[in-house]
Amino acid sequence: METKGDRRLEILLIEDNQNDVELFLNVVDWINMGDQVRVFLDGREALDFLHGKGQYKENSCTLPSVVFIDLKMPLISGHEVLKAIRKDKRTKTLPVVVFTSSDQETDIGETYRSGVNSYVVKPVQFEKYAETIRDLINYWRNVNIPPDQYKFSE
Amino acid sequence: METKGDRRLEILLIEDNQNDVELFLNVVDWINMGDQVRVFLDGREALDFLHGKGQYKENSCTLPSVVFIDLKMPLISGHEVLKAIRKDKRTKTLPVVVFTSSDQETDIGETYRSGVNSYVVKPVQFEKYAETIRDLINYWRNVNIPPDQYKFSE
Repeated sequence: METKGDRRLEILLIEDNQNDVELFLNVVDWINMGDQVRVFLDGREALDFLHGKGQYKENSCTLPSVVFIDLKMPLISGHEVLKAIRKDKRTKTLPVVVFTSSDQETDIGETYRSGVNSYVVKPVQFEKYAETIRDLINYWRNVNIPPDQYKFSE
Repeated sequence: METKGDRRLEILLIEDNQNDVELFLNVVDWINMGDQVRVFLDGREALDFLHGKGQYKENSCTLPSVVFIDLKMPLISGHEVLKAIRKDKRTKTLPVVVFTSSDQETDIGETYRSGVNSYVVKPVQFEKYAETIRDLINYWRNVNIPPDQYKFSE
């Protein structure tokens, strides 16, 4: 078994709010475990990246180990991004966590029905928010084992 | 938002190894957050409980907030239990974590394709094992939000 610190998490963060992105990146820096975060402000571009389309057509991209998606975004919602990830065979089993300010039952139910791995609400209070990002990264790096094609870098 | 300690996790543990069950229950006692664990040594009985069949036919059972399943079990494997949970509309979106000693790619891949929420390998070393149970309970109680029908008790 690998132990803590042996693995670098490759995170794909789909989040249109720049403040939320900065907080996320600050927590990753603070944890300082060498985790890499690729940020997309737009879900359509993130899907192009994951599925090797558009400007990423020539890319032999490495898939991330886990995807964190906001729900309320312009252009394409997190719900649509999640459905598109589950629909494509390359990303069908990719671990996806919805990380959103919405605690609405309709959002939670739809997300689970679409096959999300986990639903997490962003706490309002700053310290709790940072703590939740830390817990998220800890769990998806140190506790969960992703499918083979999303294995961690050495 | 609820805060830590407001919620009691209702855990369904499907595990045929009595030593593993005892360790799990000891860690839950040690955490001492009022979490409840219902243990099934046999996956068929667990499915009867979840789906209100057999001896649980007259039961208006409360569904758990999260299910932890071992893979290698006699009578019915964890893979079959997971598939049956996903197939039935009452439990289709129930958060399920496979918690197993197997780190085989075939098991990991099959589990994700069946729609598991998370795959966790039991560490061999005792302290790590207990720590992982603590991390699991922490994540599925304090970080993840389950769908409405699996909401926590007050």
